[in-house]
This record gives sequence, C-alpha cells and structure tokens, in this order.
Amino acid sequence: MAGLIAPVARLIEEFSKLPGVGTKTAQRLTYHVLRASTDDARALAKALVAIKEEVAYCSICCNITEVGVDPCDICADPRREAGRICVVEEPLDVLAIERTGEFRGRYHVLHGAISPIDGIGPERLRVRELIARVGNGDVEEVILATNPNLEGEATAMYLADMLEPHVAAVTRIARGLPVGGDLEYADDVTLIRSLQGRRQVDRS
Amino acid sequence: MAGLIAPVARLIEEFSKLPGVGTKTAQRLTYHVLRASTDDARALAKALVAIKEEVAYCSICCNITEVGVDPCDICADPRREAGRICVVEEPLDVLAIERTGEFRGRYHVLHGAISPIDGIGPERLRVRELIARVGNGDVEEVILATNPNLEGEATAMYLADMLEPHVAAVTRIARGLPVGGDLEYADDVTLIRSLQGRRQVDRS
Repeated sequence: MAGLIAPVARLIEEFSKLPGVGTKTAQRLTYHVLRASTDDARALAKALVAIKEEVAYCSICCNITEVGVDPCDICADPRREAGRICVVEEPLDVLAIERTGEFRGRYHVLHGAISPIDGIGPERLRVRELIARVGNGDVEEVILATNPNLEGEATAMYLADMLEPHVAAVTRIARGLPVGGDLEYADDVTLIRSLQGRRQVDRS
Repeated sequence: MAGLIAPVARLIEEFSKLPGVGTKTAQRLTYHVLRASTDDARALAKALVAIKEEVAYCSICCNITEVGVDPCDICADPRREAGRICVVEEPLDVLAIERTGEFRGRYHVLHGAISPIDGIGPERLRVRELIARVGNGDVEEVILATNPNLEGEATAMYLADMLEPHVAAVTRIARGLPVGGDLEYADDVTLIRSLQGRRQVDRS
C-alpha cells in the first residue's frame, strides 16, 4: 500500500491472509500491535511458531495431539469405549461433543469433508485410517457426526457405504429443530428432517 | 479451555487478545494456522516481531517511520509546505489524507485523543512536540483533523486554545453531510453542522 512503511505493510499483508480478515481489519490489527507491548507481539509470534512445531496427529484417531503424545489422550484412555467411534470433520468438532459429556466412546477426525467443487475427494480425507480401524470387526457402532450440510451429508453417505460391511451399526446424528428454536421460522429442509426423524414419545 | 492441547489453547488465547477477536474467531484463526503451511505461520510470526523492531517514531511529526529514517519521508521532503501542519490522531489518518492528494503540507500525529473517561489527558498525547513545532512562528496554518466525535472535538478545542497565540490560522476540517449521503437519513448533529458550515455558492 502506498505511503506505508515496509514493516507495517508486511504485517497488514500477513494479517489479510487470515480467513475473514479484510484490509481494513488487517490495518486495525496491525496498528493495535504497534501500540501493544513488545511482549504481547512476541507472545503471539511464539504461539504461531509453536503450534506448527508442537502439534502432531494421533496415529489412531487422526485428531491433533502434542508431539510425543501418541496415541492421544482420548485414544489412550481405557475408560473410553473402544467399540464406539464418532466420526467428525474437524478437531473443533471433538471439543464440541466432549463439552456435552454425552459421548464416552472414541473419535475419528477426517480433517475435512468430501467436496467435489473444491476438488476434495475421499482420498484427501483420513478415510483409509478409519476403514483400517473397523477392519478387525471389534467396532460395534460408528456414529457419523459430519456437519448437516451438503458436503457433510455426502461424506456421511460415502462412509456409510464403506463401513456397512465391517460394523454392526452405522448411525447418523439426528437432524431436526434446534432446542429453543421456533417451528415457524425453521427452514423447510430442517422441518422435513424433523418430521422424518420423529420418535415415539417415551412416557416412562 | 478443557480438552485442548497446550499449543492450540495458547494460540487461541493470543489471538483472543486482538481487538474484535472473540473466542470463536480465535478458534477459527487457530485452526486455519494449523492447516496452513509452516511458512505462512512463520511469515506472520516474523512480521509481528519485525514491526516492533523496525518501527520508530519521527522526531518531528511523531508519525511512524522505519528505524534509521528520521525525520520521516514526509518531513524530509522539501516539496511539502513546512508552514502548513495537519494534526491527526493516528498514523492511519495520515494515509487517508495522503490518498486524497489534496494536502501538500506536513503532519503531526497525536497518537490518540483527549478522553477523560479513559484517563487520557493532553500530557498522554504528542501535544508538547506540536507546541514546540509552532513555537518559532514559522507555521502559518494548523489544520485540526482529529475525528468528528466527542474525543476528537475536545482535542481540537484544546489544541486551538494552545495554538492560537503562535499560529496565524488554526482551522478545523469541515463537518457536514458525507458526499453521496442522504439528507433524509442524516443525524441531527450532522445536519446542524452542515447548516452552520454553509458557504456561498461559487459560480466561477
């Protein structure tokens, strides 16, 4: 950018590469760093380098883990059911499910979803590793918890086909009205899914 | 955050310290960096450190300049009118005015505005340096281009009082309807300013 001194222009450019950060936001962040303490800037710089150096992938579930911790804490935990695998797209999805406290099995992280438009086929995901895990027949259930969007549904359908011969139950997380939601404002597809997924009221 | 490995948690925390970045955004940025190349992460880290090491302040106008370049390029440029000083709050304001190509004088960057609520008085700004610049009586005009908000107006009023004895003309940038704006939707204060600032139509 004209009139900008080099180190400022460079940081604006680097910030602009982050997702959802436009030029204006990048300028604002850069001038924030200029005013902030040198220690704060160094701490962010250090964390950026550290995440690339200290993060590895679990050889079982493909989730992120600290370098040297393999298998990851969840895969190594004997209290977690080995026979139940929840398949998610991203490491953040594992966190979301862990927060619920509802699931006591293990995970498998695909690192993406099938997306023909973006040129992402199953070979770009950690599918082979998943098939290998269920190959020995010890897994009773695989829960497909990919996102309820086009790519996530396509991925779930593909995985269901691949897993069926090896696993007793291949299930998909329920799609329906979000709790606290309003039927009147629900989109049609969600409402259809919600009707299709209806269940007998449990009076016990 | 529970369930997060340390290097990931640390980068999320560091990103969260940036202005306008909440936990969700910090998570998104962190997972972007995880997926991005090591070179990209290192480039951002390097730019962060460089901006603290390579940026200095011009001893005349207090704008940012590269270390070793003092006075800054604008102050050192003999084609810029030395007798006209435009006072702004931030380095980004200099860029905005430079973009217009309308101003050929020099600048003075206050690095903030007077804000009693935030405990920022004139002594926290680069006011002393400005008074020193006009002290020798060579400056014909000081244009007060602080922001047209409460803090910026208070700063302009304060500076006008301080500068009046030393400078022939102390002026304030016009406040009025923005070009392309709509009178119907203008707020009352802007409309009042716009009426107060009315000028004879120039037919020449």
